Amino acid sequence: MADTVKNRFTGGAGYAPLTEQSIGGFLESSSQVSNVLGGRSQDWSVREVGDGNLNLVFIVKGPTGGVCLKQALPYVRLVGESWPLPIDRAHFEHEALKAEAAVVPNLVPEIYFFDKIRAAIVMELLEPHIILRKGLIQGIRYPKLADDIATFAAQTLFSTSDLALPAGRKRDQQSMFSLNIELCRITEELVFTDPYRVAELSRWTKPQLDDIAAEFRVDAHLKIAVQELKWMFLSRGEALLHGDLHTGSIMVTSEQTRVIDPEFAFYGPMGFDLGAFMANLLLSYYSQEGHATPDDDRKDYRRWLLDTLETFWRSFESKFLELWRIPRTGDAFVPGLFEDEGGRRALEAYRFTFVARLLQDSIGFAGAKIARRILGLAHVEDMESIGDSDCRARCERRALNLARQLMLGRNSITSIAAVRQLAETCGEGDL
Amino acid sequence: MADTVKNRFTGGAGYAPLTEQSIGGFLESSSQVSNVLGGRSQDWSVREVGDGNLNLVFIVKGPTGGVCLKQALPYVRLVGESWPLPIDRAHFEHEALKAEAAVVPNLVPEIYFFDKIRAAIVMELLEPHIILRKGLIQGIRYPKLADDIATFAAQTLFSTSDLALPAGRKRDQQSMFSLNIELCRITEELVFTDPYRVAELSRWTKPQLDDIAAEFRVDAHLKIAVQELKWMFLSRGEALLHGDLHTGSIMVTSEQTRVIDPEFAFYGPMGFDLGAFMANLLLSYYSQEGHATPDDDRKDYRRWLLDTLETFWRSFESKFLELWRIPRTGDAFVPGLFEDEGGRRALEAYRFTFVARLLQDSIGFAGAKIARRILGLAHVEDMESIGDSDCRARCERRALNLARQLMLGRNSITSIAAVRQLAETCGEGDL
Repeated sequence: MADTVKNRFTGGAGYAPLTEQSIGGFLESSSQVSNVLGGRSQDWSVREVGDGNLNLVFIVKGPTGGVCLKQALPYVRLVGESWPLPIDRAHFEHEALKAEAAVVPNLVPEIYFFDKIRAAIVMELLEPHIILRKGLIQGIRYPKLADDIATFAAQTLFSTSDLALPAGRKRDQQSMFSLNIELCRITEELVFTDPYRVAELSRWTKPQLDDIAAEFRVDAHLKIAVQELKWMFLSRGEALLHGDLHTGSIMVTSEQTRVIDPEFAFYGPMGFDLGAFMANLLLSYYSQEGHATPDDDRKDYRRWLLDTLETFWRSFESKFLELWRIPRTGDAFVPGLFEDEGGRRALEAYRFTFVARLLQDSIGFAGAKIARRILGLAHVEDMESIGDSDCRARCERRALNLARQLMLGRNSITSIAAVRQLAETCGEGDL
Repeated sequence: MADTVKNRFTGGAGYAPLTEQSIGGFLESSSQVSNVLGGRSQDWSVREVGDGNLNLVFIVKGPTGGVCLKQALPYVRLVGESWPLPIDRAHFEHEALKAEAAVVPNLVPEIYFFDKIRAAIVMELLEPHIILRKGLIQGIRYPKLADDIATFAAQTLFSTSDLALPAGRKRDQQSMFSLNIELCRITEELVFTDPYRVAELSRWTKPQLDDIAAEFRVDAHLKIAVQELKWMFLSRGEALLHGDLHTGSIMVTSEQTRVIDPEFAFYGPMGFDLGAFMANLLLSYYSQEGHATPDDDRKDYRRWLLDTLETFWRSFESKFLELWRIPRTGDAFVPGLFEDEGGRRALEAYRFTFVARLLQDSIGFAGAKIARRILGLAHVEDMESIGDSDCRARCERRALNLARQLMLGRNSITSIAAVRQLAETCGEGDL
């Protein structure tokens, strides 16, 4: 038993971190990968590009094409070997990618090859895509973004929930994903706990934010609110979540959107994914003052970000409701019970109640996700890249004020327009 | 794979239903069982006594003691071989019994021996205990019942929830119990679906209840309410539930209470167990007119049943809150966050909010459990034993009226006293 646990963390026989030298031989073992790259391994160029917190990422190019290889390391890359992390997260990521590809094949990278022993996924090289977060820092507009992520969220959340799946199939999937324990633990600690206590790993812009960081640690009502969100994260298995749907997990061109990196996948509350995306749009919104230049005050761009937030929600809502209206096989809200006129009307009214509650869950989680990026361990480049710490602190303080209001007030917010208005109010002047 | 599934239903090599002839040899293989019984198999008497819906139950007695053996059959005994049911439910029952014994050893039968291949559990013979339901039909008072079941529910629900368990341990347990799929499916179909549609297996007292049965099938708001409860059953993994906590799963003397038969165990909403017990007290309450005699009008006994309902809830609430107040290791509502005076007060206030919501969940589930026992496949002896069908229908109609009000109005009921009042109102006169 102890050996099994150890192997989950460090890898069993056959596991070793790949290097630029060893990767060619490994990839040659897959004919599909060799076909994509063309030629032989001596003709391939290899580059390690991982800038995330957890994994090795290689880009490999050959005469006819390229691939991306992601390999799990047995520890948190951001922290070091002192924080072990099981490499079987690659298995959960692969399973989640398959579930996503079943409903939104055009919004996720194509998988060429998965090696469970090496905890390595070889997938489509997304080129010339860039990480969405970097595009938002540059002030680039993505006209299809809101609708694409709305499609991704509506399709993946609906199709893996009890609205779409027979209960047995859903319980079976949940049983498997429940074992993605250590990745969930990262969220449980870093999102829902550490920003609200004195925690060794936490940091924030000092000394400017010392006061509001202290306020977050002593605000009992806020801590109740965030712990209630944590309870939902721990106990509500509503759908298979991506689990880390921020703007660093999305790659874009002006034409295409791809969602990557679902290694945090598990059965959780739908609002957690929705809130993650909203939180990161809002972090970008508040960071824009720090990226403004004399030629580009970013005012229009900030408006575009809030337009994107609103369009995302409205589009998600309409797609999710539409999926719920067409014939389906899920065991929840058994379709056969609502076939007469009264039933149809009552169910349609209930659907709106359901998504209204989902908005409240989502903005609560959005608040928690914003706060952890400013007061916790892992920050976002949107804010980190603002060199002037006074300016950065001003941006971050506005975001924190919104985060607090979203967590405390989520149950009295009834529309995405109200969220936008609150975001704008928190963005005005120096609070 | 198909073979594995088939084996789960029919048993693999080594499985065969035990008989009064084969059971002696089987029990001799356990020295613990042999020690309890004394002597050798030729000295033992064997009697099959299963009157439940799913299993074989044998009572075996020897010179020095007795044991009870429960063996899963590969189909639903009540329906027949046309409804296969996997025998691995014995494994889940055994795991649940262990989890319960860890916190309430005096409220569950002691386990002597578990044979996974034969799907057989050998346990303490409860004597002179009788099934609580039969005692309630006879009008017997059990002074310790309310408090004992409150202890059972508070301890088992709290200790298996995120309030008590580290998240990883809880996810691990949930992963295992999520595979108790077919037993959950019975509840999903028979409790939350069939009573609200034309279903082959359903039955009710005809023709007296034809009108109200039809009302249940066309009441769109009621069907929304019950489907919302089903959504909770499907998606909220709050604690390890007994899963079938009715008065047929409790054995009693005037001094002792034992909870048996947790084969439906899975991670679900806490209110489901609490509601199951409340529903069965209420079914007994409404059935009493049918058991009254000239010498015993059962009026005082009906009052005792509602006293028991109230005492049960108040006692559960106080025990659950107390468990939450003492030092604990769960990852939800992280204790370290609430150590200052403001935190302590806010958390204490929140605890009351939590149990108030739990009451609302519980009475909703109670309503669903009452209705399924009158309009669904499996009925209760409390009602079935009333020979006069007009009288039975009158009792059942009152119970159905309460059930409907509990499901539709649960969110506006804020105290157990209000539940009692509603129960009394529905019990008066001919509605």
